[in-house]
Amino acid sequence: MLIAADNLRITNRSIQAALDQMDPGPIRELAARCVAAGAQAIDINSGPLSRCPEEKMTFLVETVQSETTLPLILDTSNPKALEAGLITSKNKTIINGFSLEPRKLSGILPLAKKYHSDIIGYLLFPNSQVPVDEADCIQVALELFDAFKKAGLENEQLIIDPVVAPLIWEDGMRHNRGILSVIRLLPELLGFPVRTIAGISNLATGSLPTDTKRRLECAFLPMLAAAGLSMALINVLHKETLKTARICHSFLNPGVFSWAEI
Amino acid sequence: MLIAADNLRITNRSIQAALDQMDPGPIRELAARCVAAGAQAIDINSGPLSRCPEEKMTFLVETVQSETTLPLILDTSNPKALEAGLITSKNKTIINGFSLEPRKLSGILPLAKKYHSDIIGYLLFPNSQVPVDEADCIQVALELFDAFKKAGLENEQLIIDPVVAPLIWEDGMRHNRGILSVIRLLPELLGFPVRTIAGISNLATGSLPTDTKRRLECAFLPMLAAAGLSMALINVLHKETLKTARICHSFLNPGVFSWAEI
Repeated sequence: MLIAADNLRITNRSIQAALDQMDPGPIRELAARCVAAGAQAIDINSGPLSRCPEEKMTFLVETVQSETTLPLILDTSNPKALEAGLITSKNKTIINGFSLEPRKLSGILPLAKKYHSDIIGYLLFPNSQVPVDEADCIQVALELFDAFKKAGLENEQLIIDPVVAPLIWEDGMRHNRGILSVIRLLPELLGFPVRTIAGISNLATGSLPTDTKRRLECAFLPMLAAAGLSMALINVLHKETLKTARICHSFLNPGVFSWAEI
Repeated sequence: MLIAADNLRITNRSIQAALDQMDPGPIRELAARCVAAGAQAIDINSGPLSRCPEEKMTFLVETVQSETTLPLILDTSNPKALEAGLITSKNKTIINGFSLEPRKLSGILPLAKKYHSDIIGYLLFPNSQVPVDEADCIQVALELFDAFKKAGLENEQLIIDPVVAPLIWEDGMRHNRGILSVIRLLPELLGFPVRTIAGISNLATGSLPTDTKRRLECAFLPMLAAAGLSMALINVLHKETLKTARICHSFLNPGVFSWAEI
């Protein structure tokens, strides 16, 4: 299981300010901290970038890739920003992402084909609602894969995100139990070892004590890992979550358990 | 997933001393702490009790059941001690346990029939070695179930322990990965929803820093829980492990996620 950093996000005020002022310093510094912590990919969550999308995403990608050659996960719903990022990036890219939502299918998915990029597909209904039941998740996965293939993409480019639900949602944990099965079933369902990703920070959003948040993440992450999750999107500066992700990797790797990794 | 306390063990010096002096105080006090922490069963690990086995186990059971009505897991390889415990216990009992080892089959297994007790069956070879491969675990499970049925017991009395291996064993984690599959497969393999138990404290034995031990336990326990483990045998006075066990229960329970439980 690879570890991707979700730290570089526009909801972080210092990143928002740095982007407003086109100041690379804080962005580069945060990217460097993620790399030092052991991130194996960096999610750049720019938000929709309604003003100057191309310029802003170009700046973000250039800044991060001046610090690291790790894969960049370009996390925006704005096709203009996304395309600018894909053009700018010298690093491997992962588009984050598309779903059955019509404007994602028409605006985002074709960019994966055009730029030979990997792409994350969310298991969401076309109206962006989260399917609670496992059966609905599976139906959505089949439709998503169908759209993905019709766009002319190769199986190896797909990474499915079954969407971890916040526990504060009424049906959040029922949905999350379902995605454990879905992650386990997907390779057989789609007929190839499809990769999966999950955003762990989604689980414990809201006003919870920090140690409770970490404990919830550190209990759910091993369940996802044992189900076969390929990539965990986490806050890599949260020491406990990071250590748990590493232990999961070391536990589940077919090699001999390695103390060096934990 | 139920939580059973592994705290009451003869390797705890104060318990050894209390048993030597037949002093109920420290035993009762530890049992009370386990109950207060939220244990749902108490393992009484007396060791083999080579001297005065009946008297010692009777004393242990009487002392613990003076404090709690929780099920007692009678954890000894000595049939004399075990039978005394079964006669003395007013609480529900679980014999811990039998295996394919000939003296366990002849000396321990019949006591479950005689006293209508639940019994734990270990997935071990007849020579008490741990099978590393999943296929061997499954073969052992089938032979164990066969012996169990031949002893005239009811399916509902069986609890299978796939034996968590210490990570310091060369093949420890390979075995542990296998038991995740085994726990998942057992109900279908045996044709009924067989219960399972695992001793989590076995995982991180040896001279490791305490926080590393807890972190390893807290990563493996959710994997076991998500595989369907029925009962986790843990040190209930280890706060992090206990909280993780509770979160696992709350995550995986078919009801709505309950904040009250964590």
